[in-house]
Amino acid sequence: MDNELIRYHGGNIHAAARDSGLAAIDFLDFSANINPLGLSLQVRAALLATMDLVVAYPDPDAVALKQAIADSYQVPGECIETGNGAVELIYLLCRALSPSRVLLPAPTFGEYEAAATAAGLPLVRLPLSADAGFVPDLAAIGASMQRDDVLFFCNPNNPSGVIMNREQLEPLLAQAEAAGAHVVIDESFIDFRPPEQAETCRTLIGRYRSLSVLHSLTKFLAVPGLRLGFLLTEPNLVRRLGLLRDPWNVNVMAQAAGVAGLQDLAYRQETLRLVTEQKDWLKSELQSISGVKPFTPSVNFILADIGDTGWSAAALQQRLWADRILIRNCASFSGLSDRYIRLAVKRPEENRQLMARLKSIIDKEEEA
Amino acid sequence: MDNELIRYHGGNIHAAARDSGLAAIDFLDFSANINPLGLSLQVRAALLATMDLVVAYPDPDAVALKQAIADSYQVPGECIETGNGAVELIYLLCRALSPSRVLLPAPTFGEYEAAATAAGLPLVRLPLSADAGFVPDLAAIGASMQRDDVLFFCNPNNPSGVIMNREQLEPLLAQAEAAGAHVVIDESFIDFRPPEQAETCRTLIGRYRSLSVLHSLTKFLAVPGLRLGFLLTEPNLVRRLGLLRDPWNVNVMAQAAGVAGLQDLAYRQETLRLVTEQKDWLKSELQSISGVKPFTPSVNFILADIGDTGWSAAALQQRLWADRILIRNCASFSGLSDRYIRLAVKRPEENRQLMARLKSIIDKEEEA
Repeated sequence: MDNELIRYHGGNIHAAARDSGLAAIDFLDFSANINPLGLSLQVRAALLATMDLVVAYPDPDAVALKQAIADSYQVPGECIETGNGAVELIYLLCRALSPSRVLLPAPTFGEYEAAATAAGLPLVRLPLSADAGFVPDLAAIGASMQRDDVLFFCNPNNPSGVIMNREQLEPLLAQAEAAGAHVVIDESFIDFRPPEQAETCRTLIGRYRSLSVLHSLTKFLAVPGLRLGFLLTEPNLVRRLGLLRDPWNVNVMAQAAGVAGLQDLAYRQETLRLVTEQKDWLKSELQSISGVKPFTPSVNFILADIGDTGWSAAALQQRLWADRILIRNCASFSGLSDRYIRLAVKRPEENRQLMARLKSIIDKEEEA
Repeated sequence: MDNELIRYHGGNIHAAARDSGLAAIDFLDFSANINPLGLSLQVRAALLATMDLVVAYPDPDAVALKQAIADSYQVPGECIETGNGAVELIYLLCRALSPSRVLLPAPTFGEYEAAATAAGLPLVRLPLSADAGFVPDLAAIGASMQRDDVLFFCNPNNPSGVIMNREQLEPLLAQAEAAGAHVVIDESFIDFRPPEQAETCRTLIGRYRSLSVLHSLTKFLAVPGLRLGFLLTEPNLVRRLGLLRDPWNVNVMAQAAGVAGLQDLAYRQETLRLVTEQKDWLKSELQSISGVKPFTPSVNFILADIGDTGWSAAALQQRLWADRILIRNCASFSGLSDRYIRLAVKRPEENRQLMARLKSIIDKEEEA
């Protein structure tokens, strides 16, 4: 059953529903890191208002969406490319940059490797040490970069949650520029951090030609089903990406959701309050279970080492699946074993439900 | 202004609205060939019901959608790949097949050329003769195919409306198979034809390994804003296409629209009745305008040669734009000059409005 369960790793509630005969909505999904508030009311209103516009083609230039991104993130419009999810942009980047090698810290988000493989590019894995809490050795990474390399650097990193600040990252960018390498900083989860500006590298766009900043909007706006992401980079690369993709890649519902969601500041504030509170609660609860070692969460997910509980990630995933709870078995991450699970930060009542089950299962206090 | 107007060729009502200061909905759009009935009520209901599922990732395997396609078109499920619009599949095909040359009848749909260019592939244009009504010389096309070529063959062809039947096309497929070339028959408009089976090549899937049949669902189901298309081909190519794309290319709204729309047989019937009636009415009306030579329409659009009216397509497009009516200036089609315009078949009152304006403009009966 382990091999089947691995299919659910990306929040695939559809496969879970098919295999169980239940509805997708019957599962409590801790395997996908989506804003626990669900749809913003303003996004919902925008989707309703947009329904009658699906009879026309999407705006191929995504003018309103790019304007909303430019306003919200204070970036120049000509540095923005939008995508059918951030993942589409990863695939496009691998083709547009066509690097000699793709450098990937390990563990990290799996789609960099999938996209590099799809483009036929050689991979170099840069192992992150569990003993160091998966904190990257930026000097070593910088030294390893050669001409025409591309480094994908997820910040905060998925699944570890480790986040570096801009001051720490800037020497790496300077090294890449000097070496003739390109760095893609993936900030897809950074909106779940307090909105001070010490961490994002988007303020460096324009200063480093070899820098791209990737940003999913589906996680924070809770619209993964619509697909929406953007890339910030220098205008020439924006144009090359535009020529590689089909003209209507971002659908009208996603464009409307982006415009409305980026303007909903109350939703943003409430999300931050909830995630900050609940991620810390989850960590302290996990710590109270014997043998579970949670990592410090920075955003809306938390990695935990359960190796000392006697449970494998696969066995625990299977046990929770029977309770209609999905968690991420991290064995599918290159660089992690099945000692590790990843949990999304959800609403208080959902988090309590998961913790109650985990304690009952791991501490063997289950009733027969 | 001609250069600007060319931007509207693909039904880009968004650019038209921006340039005019009007709303997109203020334009009567004859430049995009979308089902004049608009959304099926069943599709609309499905979209409303699906809105709450956008908080989860789409089904990467599109199981329900592929089942609906398999049922509706009587094709094996393992021969189906779905796309973020048929156009995404054209781009993927160019990369997956990586042919030595891309053969393109001219004029035809422009995205084959754009996709081939994006993939860096050499193009060979096969000119269709205006004197022959743009009917292709299938024997000559067959003879021109070499090993590792890909031929894109749009049937019925956009913009001419010329349609060949399966009996005429099968020798071409046999020649391609013998030569080691691949043929992509694009049947994106074939659902607007009466549902007898003499024209579609999808019944030949499985018989010819080198055949793919492409099919947009956005035109017939009136959901271009959601993006939805599929490809029928042999299972190995289906798998290769799946590895080249990101896993969540078809969003949940598009998947739901496809499932609901394919099952709405009353909508299908009413569409056929309306389009059949109105395309013939449009042709006879166009014929009654001095100097206008319409081609025989086969589906929901009609090509017309206006060269003898004294109007260029660009000038007529501009004149109608002032009336908030968009038409397609065919000068952007390789192989056509700006003698040609293409008009979508819309609802009776819309078609009457266009014809009244055209008569008034071209026959110079306009009031000062």
